[in-house]
This record gives sequence, structure tokens and C-alpha cells, in this order.
Amino acid sequence: MNPLKEILNPGSIVIYGASNNPTKMGSMQLINILETGYQGKVFVVHRREKEVLGLPAWPSAEAIPERVDLAQVVTPPQAVPGILEEIGRAGIRRAIIISGGFKEMGDEGRELEGKLREIAERHAIRFLGPNCVGIMSSPASLNTTTIARPPMGGKVALVSQSGAYSAMIYPFLAERGLRVHTTISVGNEADIDVVDCLDYLAEVDEVRAVGLYLETVRRPREFIHAARKAAERKPVTAFYVGGTEAGARASLSHTGAICGSDELYSGLFSQSGVIRVSDMDEMADALLALSLQPLPPGPRFAVITNSGGPGSALCYHLEKAGLEVPIFSRGLAERLKAMTRPLSYCGNPVDLTFETDQNLFLRILGEVLSSGEVDGAVIYGLFAPSDFMHNIKARIPAVREVEEALEKGFSDFTRSLAEIPRSLGKPLLVLSFLPPGSSTAKKLVGSGIPVYQSARRIAEVASVMVRYSQVSPGSRDRAP
Amino acid sequence: MNPLKEILNPGSIVIYGASNNPTKMGSMQLINILETGYQGKVFVVHRREKEVLGLPAWPSAEAIPERVDLAQVVTPPQAVPGILEEIGRAGIRRAIIISGGFKEMGDEGRELEGKLREIAERHAIRFLGPNCVGIMSSPASLNTTTIARPPMGGKVALVSQSGAYSAMIYPFLAERGLRVHTTISVGNEADIDVVDCLDYLAEVDEVRAVGLYLETVRRPREFIHAARKAAERKPVTAFYVGGTEAGARASLSHTGAICGSDELYSGLFSQSGVIRVSDMDEMADALLALSLQPLPPGPRFAVITNSGGPGSALCYHLEKAGLEVPIFSRGLAERLKAMTRPLSYCGNPVDLTFETDQNLFLRILGEVLSSGEVDGAVIYGLFAPSDFMHNIKARIPAVREVEEALEKGFSDFTRSLAEIPRSLGKPLLVLSFLPPGSSTAKKLVGSGIPVYQSARRIAEVASVMVRYSQVSPGSRDRAP
Repeated sequence: MNPLKEILNPGSIVIYGASNNPTKMGSMQLINILETGYQGKVFVVHRREKEVLGLPAWPSAEAIPERVDLAQVVTPPQAVPGILEEIGRAGIRRAIIISGGFKEMGDEGRELEGKLREIAERHAIRFLGPNCVGIMSSPASLNTTTIARPPMGGKVALVSQSGAYSAMIYPFLAERGLRVHTTISVGNEADIDVVDCLDYLAEVDEVRAVGLYLETVRRPREFIHAARKAAERKPVTAFYVGGTEAGARASLSHTGAICGSDELYSGLFSQSGVIRVSDMDEMADALLALSLQPLPPGPRFAVITNSGGPGSALCYHLEKAGLEVPIFSRGLAERLKAMTRPLSYCGNPVDLTFETDQNLFLRILGEVLSSGEVDGAVIYGLFAPSDFMHNIKARIPAVREVEEALEKGFSDFTRSLAEIPRSLGKPLLVLSFLPPGSSTAKKLVGSGIPVYQSARRIAEVASVMVRYSQVSPGSRDRAP
Repeated sequence: MNPLKEILNPGSIVIYGASNNPTKMGSMQLINILETGYQGKVFVVHRREKEVLGLPAWPSAEAIPERVDLAQVVTPPQAVPGILEEIGRAGIRRAIIISGGFKEMGDEGRELEGKLREIAERHAIRFLGPNCVGIMSSPASLNTTTIARPPMGGKVALVSQSGAYSAMIYPFLAERGLRVHTTISVGNEADIDVVDCLDYLAEVDEVRAVGLYLETVRRPREFIHAARKAAERKPVTAFYVGGTEAGARASLSHTGAICGSDELYSGLFSQSGVIRVSDMDEMADALLALSLQPLPPGPRFAVITNSGGPGSALCYHLEKAGLEVPIFSRGLAERLKAMTRPLSYCGNPVDLTFETDQNLFLRILGEVLSSGEVDGAVIYGLFAPSDFMHNIKARIPAVREVEEALEKGFSDFTRSLAEIPRSLGKPLLVLSFLPPGSSTAKKLVGSGIPVYQSARRIAEVASVMVRYSQVSPGSRDRAP
């Protein structure tokens, strides 16, 4: 059985390295475990204290009167081998070793890491790390990292050779509305590695898309096999940073990774069906759409806008990204023209110029996506009334009385809008300059419509969707 | 005299097109003028009403018993020529024509636009538009657009052939902490155009950087001359979208612009000393740094991080963008090693691994930027304590009592940090995954340190800074 199943869904955990000093890493992790809703049992081992952060402290794992499923260890590196022996004797078979100071620190650390491997093998312990930051598992309401408030409950899994990119990044993901099913920080991969993660996540149906942050691939052959299998079922995206001189130097000091050239890795990814992205922001953008929207059956996009500049920018960037913005047939253009105001242009882009009746977007989107002439659509020009009423309310108090009804109207609108791409099996992406915290962005994303703040970002997302659709044509029919 | 001086700093304004219906464009603009702190006189012309939004309404501009500096007109296009005659007769010499329905609508509109030009010339009226959205002028506390709450008071000017990219974009700019000195929506440029804007903005010392959104350049020769003159004094960046087939189609329907190829425009920009950027987000990113930080004297950057992944990503993207992340000399590496913990790496990147004492960043940054070995620096790993204390506060109530002191400590820290690049004349950029609304981002940007959420974005910004530094070596010494 894949060891990640128990690591991500343990019935009980014991923590080594927590104390009554809340600024210590182990203490922060314990606090987060206790505060995030985890329903399993939590034990703490402390050599001297009787109580740690309100929990009884045990002198060792062996003293705990039941068998614990998982140990998480954050102590100085020299103490880790002894602790691994101890949890082995206590019958614990899964561990997360947070501690740094191993392979990434040169020969001495490499030797110490070998020792961990030897002890683990002897006790049949499978472990994550060392030099990692823990995991977040939505099904278990479990967050063993130092970062509070992970955006739980989504359909996306992240696997990262960097701790920051699996935990420090939570506020970044939360801001974008990208909720996450699972994050796994693999650290130095002394035992469990990215290949194991891909094997496991391929089988978890609730995970609809996977993101990888990589500084190296230690088992290329197995990686290709596992990634291919996963990519047949769900999109797998990767951000790789080892391919420049300073990037390689930084990675070596970080996780002891020996990096290969950018080209080599691009080849490895394309062989594996993995979509390479250029940074975590592009990955988060792509995963948001991949987890919320159907895949485009082809590269043709419609642009619907109530303002010329963003429409032009969308057309420009979609074409720059290798996608198509085809001119509509005369029939479709005439049907659209009949719905819109005299000043509008209906050739693709559909440019409504200034338009306050947002319901028009429902009819236009339906007409366009059901025409057979495009494979997806982008809209610019949606807004929740409250995002624009500050000054009007100040000057005309009566407006305050209708604000709630207007906002409710917008909520109804976003729900109706979200139904169209879902029912027609073609994706909708929205461009807006309102920030992620605005009512507009929250209601759209909450309804399942991904929102982005630049035309370039939208084109990148659309390109990833089309590329994945080509990698795995069968997966097009999966529900988003 | 450049007509923009009076348009951006009028002593009085008259509005055509406002009514008592607050959903009309003209009404929203009037409300924003009244709510944004404008100290000049505001008049409203309405043919039937006696009062509009609480102001007395005049039947025509000629009925107003004093000469008004500026008229803003948003009415159906057919009414505009008559209004232009009327304001001409009333002695008004500056106008902003918001109304659409001119050149962008084909032959009939083109003729109507010609008529505007003829009337304006006859009355010596200089005007912005038609088909524009108005202006925002911080020195005059004046916002004539429909969008409330522009991020006023900065050192950046935006000139845009798209209304959305000069006004709808306010929330987008505000979110990033990019305050703006002036925005000018030029619309169809029937009279005042981008060249006039560049001429004017070159002379305004408080404007430290300029951003252009372009779908066409109507007077290429004059553009090159004006842009060069401006670029000698301050960075000028441009986002051009006409260079693809659909982009050109969209622009034609939008502002009646005839577009040229991407290559042609890239040549035009490089001849002019204008830095081309790929979208408004990249432009906003660049303008934030250009308006807050000194220019880098060369392409060498130091990366200082408390976490490996972001450090690797920064090295990777800086090198990908054509910049350098040089290995430090033995002397510098040893001086840094003496300041840091045993597990740190000091070769560039400086990787502190987990580090909670942020004051260390002050000493490292000072050492690195004064070494002569780099021309700028990027830091990852800064955070305001309150952004990470949610769960700790819940579990350990005593922490709440020290929160304020910790936050104050961070404020003092950001102020000290901001002094270092300022005094050494080399830029500092910060990578953080905390959202723009976080205490971390607000305090850093508030102290003058630009913050970005991805390594790729930082590399793009650094690249724009280095490119401008090469365009205009003399400008390096200007204060930021």
C-alpha cells in the first residue's frame, strides 16, 4: 500500500519537537494541528516537560499506551536517528521528518541521511523528508505545517520539493480562491519521493489536478511512468527551476538536488504528459481553471467584452499564446448583433462598449458557446454593484436601500453564468481588474468561474488547458 | 502652452450629460468629481432640469455667468457638435469628449469626428477624446471618470488609448499599492494625442515614471521625438496590443486604430527609448519599482532568502530574464557566513534556511549592497508577525498582549530596511506570498519597498529597471 495514504489520513499523531515556547517550529506545527479541526488523537513527546501547550507530554513514544499511526519530528538533526529508532520500537510505521541539516549540508549530512534510511528500513518505517515542512490533508482536516489557515477543501494537490512552495504559499493560494485538497512537502526525498506522490494522487478521485514544484527528478524512468499514468486521469503541471547556473547552485544548497538543463527537463515533462509552467503564479492560475472548468475541445476562443482595451489585450495575448480567436460566421455575428446595442461590434471580439445590463452576457455566452465556432470563451466586464457604489451611496442615500437587492441579483447572475460552460462542456474564464477580495471576484470564483487580473494570465491558463486537452483527449469528458 | 496643463488643473468645470439618474455615465462622473475633493467650481448643463444631483442646472454653458475652464461632455454622438459650438461661444477652450460613436464606428462616425475637429479649430478649443473616459489628476484632486476611489497621490502617470486601462484599472492599481499622479484617457485622439501627453508629462517633475497603453501610434516621427525627450528624464513603458490578427481587428473596432506588426512597434519603441512590457500587470509591477526605488547601475543581483524554493526560483528567473546572479567573492561570503547560522549558504543566493530574526536581513542587505559585487537585491522571507499569529493567539492568549509591540517592531524594521537601498543607490525588491492586503505587504510598500508575489514578476521588474538604466544612464542618479 502507498505509505501516503496513512501519512495523509492518520488516526493518531505524535509530535517530537514541540515545547511551551510558541515561537519554535514544532510548537507552531502542534498549534496548527490542534486548531485546524483534526479529529484524530494527538500526542506530544518531551524529554523534560510534563505538559506542552495544554497537552500531557510523554517522555518517549514507547511510553504512549497505544500504537500511534504517524510521528512528526522537528529536532536538531543529530537527534533524529535516535528518535527514529525509538518510534520504530514503539511500532510507528509512518513519519514526517521536518528537521534540516542532512544531504543539503554536504558529506556529513549525507551520511546522517543514510543512517535515517537504514534505521527506517530496519523498522519498516516509510517517511517524508528530511528537510520538509509537513503536510496538509483536507479529508483529515490536518495541517502539520507552521502556516495557519490553509485554503482547504478543494480539488487540487500540490507536491513540492520546497517547503515554502507547499506551505508559505497558503495565503497566496487562498487569495486567489484556489482551495487545495492536499499539499505534500517532500524535502530531500530520502524515502518517499515525487514518484510515490504521483502514484498515490493518480488514484485519489477527489483530486482533479496536480501541481509539482521540482528542483530535480531523482528517478526519471519511474517519474515518466507515474506521471503518464496520472496525466491520463488528471492534469499534472510542473514548475522546474534547476535549469540555469544560479538556479542549479541554489537548488544544490537547498535540497541537495543535482539539476539538469532546462531542455532536458522540458523533454522529460513532455514525454510524461506533464504541462510545464513558468512559475507558481502561473501554476496556481492554471490549477484554478483546471479544477473548476471543463476542458476546451480545441484552441478556438471567443472574447466577449464591454470595453475595447481589455478585449484587444485578450485577443492579442490569446493569439500570442498560440490559440485562435476566429472571426465569427455571418450567421452568428448577425444573431449577436440582434441582441446588442447599435454601437457594438460582433465579429469576435464581441465588444458591447459600455453595457450595464449584465444579463446580456448570459445570452451572448450561450449563443457563442453553443455555436460550434469556438471551444471556450473569455469575458471582460462583469462587476458586483457594490464594488462601484461607494461614491453613489455617499451622494444618494436611497441607493443604499437597493444595494442588497442588486447584490443578490449579481449572485443569481453568477450562478446562471456558471451553468453555461458546465452544460455546454466548454470553459469560461473571466478577466477583471477588481481585486480577489472584491465582491465581484468572490462571487464569480464562488460560483466556479475563475477570475484573473490580466489578459496575459488568461492566455497562459487557456494555453495550459488546451495543451492538457491534447495530452489526454479522453479526459475531456470528465466532469470538472 | 500644452493644453493638458489646464485640462488636468482646471479652476472650473462644466458637465454635459449628467442627470438625476445615478446609473448614467455622466451622473457617475459628476458624483466622482464632487466626492474626490476637487476644490474648483463645478457646473452642470441640463436642457430641462433645474437641479441635477443637488447642483443648480444651467440650460447651456452660455448661461453660466463666468468663463469656465473645462467642459466634459457625455451625450449621444449626434449632440456633440452642437455642444462644442455652444461651449466655444461661451469662451471655453478645453474639453473632454467622453461620447463614443465616432471614428471607431466607420465612415459616418469618421465624418462626425471631422466635424468636431473643424468646430474645435474654429473656436480654438483643444480636447481629449472622443470615445474616452476622462482624467484623474492628483494635484487637482480631480477624478472625472466613472470609477470611484482612484489611487491618487503617487509619482506615476498613465496615458491610455483604452478607457478601461485608464480608469477601470484603478482598483487593480490600488490593490498593488501603486498610487498614481495622473491618468489620461486619450480615446480616438481626434485632437490631443499620446505625443502631446508625453510632451506634457516630460515636464512635470513630480511624475517619475510613465506608462502607455497603445493600440496605434498616429504620429510616429513626433512620437519618437517626444518619447526620447521624456525617456531622458524618466522611464517610459508601453503595452502595445495591435500586433496580432485578432488584436488588430479588436483595436480597429475599438478606437479606429490601424495597427502595425509587433516587430514594427518593437522597433519604434526601442528607437524611442520606450521599454515595452507585455501587459498592464507587468507595467504596474514595473512602475511600482521605478517610482519607489533607485535604478540598478548594472545587471547583477543578490538573492537573500530564508527558504530554498523561492531562492531557487528567483535565481532561475533572474537569469532567464538575462540578468546575473554572480557568485560572491570569498571575502564577502565569509563576512556573511560570520553573521548567519551554521546551516546557511552564503554564495548567492544567501539562504538563511528558517530564520525568525528579521533584523539579520538589515545587516546582510547592507553588506551585500555595499560590496560592489551586485547592482541590486531581492529578499524573500519578510513577514509582519500578525500575519502568522492567528492560531497562536487562539491557543496562547498571552500572545495577544505582545502583538502590538511585535507589529511596531516590524514597522520600524521596514523603515530601516527601506533606508539601505535609498542610501546605497541600488534597488531592493521583495518577494512575498502574503497578499497585498496583508500587514506585511502594506508596511513594506508603505515604506517604499515594492513587493511582488512571484519570482517571475520580480525578474521582469528587475529587467525593466536594468533596461531603462541602459537607455538613460544619466537618470540613474536621480532620487527615486
